[in-house]
Amino acid sequence: MYFTLEKSIEILERTPRVLNTMLQNISAEWTSNNEGGETWSVYDIIGHLIHGEKTDWIPRAEIILSENTNQKFEPFNRFAQFEESKGKSLAQLSYEFKILRENNIRHLRSRQLTDKQMELKGVHPAFGEVTLAQLLSAWVVHDLNHIAQISRVMAKQYQAEVGPWIAYLKILQ
Amino acid sequence: MYFTLEKSIEILERTPRVLNTMLQNISAEWTSNNEGGETWSVYDIIGHLIHGEKTDWIPRAEIILSENTNQKFEPFNRFAQFEESKGKSLAQLSYEFKILRENNIRHLRSRQLTDKQMELKGVHPAFGEVTLAQLLSAWVVHDLNHIAQISRVMAKQYQAEVGPWIAYLKILQ
Repeated sequence: MYFTLEKSIEILERTPRVLNTMLQNISAEWTSNNEGGETWSVYDIIGHLIHGEKTDWIPRAEIILSENTNQKFEPFNRFAQFEESKGKSLAQLSYEFKILRENNIRHLRSRQLTDKQMELKGVHPAFGEVTLAQLLSAWVVHDLNHIAQISRVMAKQYQAEVGPWIAYLKILQ
Repeated sequence: MYFTLEKSIEILERTPRVLNTMLQNISAEWTSNNEGGETWSVYDIIGHLIHGEKTDWIPRAEIILSENTNQKFEPFNRFAQFEESKGKSLAQLSYEFKILRENNIRHLRSRQLTDKQMELKGVHPAFGEVTLAQLLSAWVVHDLNHIAQISRVMAKQYQAEVGPWIAYLKILQ
């Protein structure tokens, strides 16, 4: 499957609704526990997605599209949510993510990007040169990655409850 | 987290809506392709979930709850969907799953199961003795497993498009 903006937006625009459907009014035990140690809870993951909307995908796309000669991305802070989410409920975070995502998709559409612009490049702090198409594709896969992670973190809460079925349930391994 | 029927139903009742939110009106490229070889597409997975509603979870719960001395489960057919889904659209399958799941949850609630009944046992073809609580917990985790799998199958369609980001996106590995 080849990258297109429209097929990417199909995923990006669904993510806040998918998360809301999974999480709205669910018992806190499913969302406040993690997978042990330094791993993230569902609550932490939503905070991470919010920080990505603010500082990662669209800001990096704008660096690629700018006329500046310095097209180096700022490093992304993977731990920002531990400060930024403080005092907020999961419902508040989900709503915040939804609004940010809607605005970012609206902004992306308003740019009316051409195929040629999709090949423009920025400089990733670890990878070096990357194209706009790669950045937007990574945004899509990043969403799906975290939907899968949220499913896994929730599944792990029942790890001890499934008994011998653990052998058939790959998500628990 | 300990098994409770209500917390299990929280997940079970959301799954058809989660899948519908992820998949309704999405381009077929996201849902008709698999991960290569004998792996399953999103379309195949929905067919598998339907077959589970018909022959796996509730029928096995009823074997456990029955007065029969033979409490052995029928083996589950992991390939039934390749015949049963034939000629049906993804939208039809999603709707069929939703109706079956609603009926199964209604049936489960109508049983008004006690904590003591949750410890009743059936005989799994591979594992031997399992409790009703373990069966129902496995049903929940099985849903989350397939939501994660669907996310992964979709993510894989963009595997070549993300360029060097593949190194950061665990779902592609």
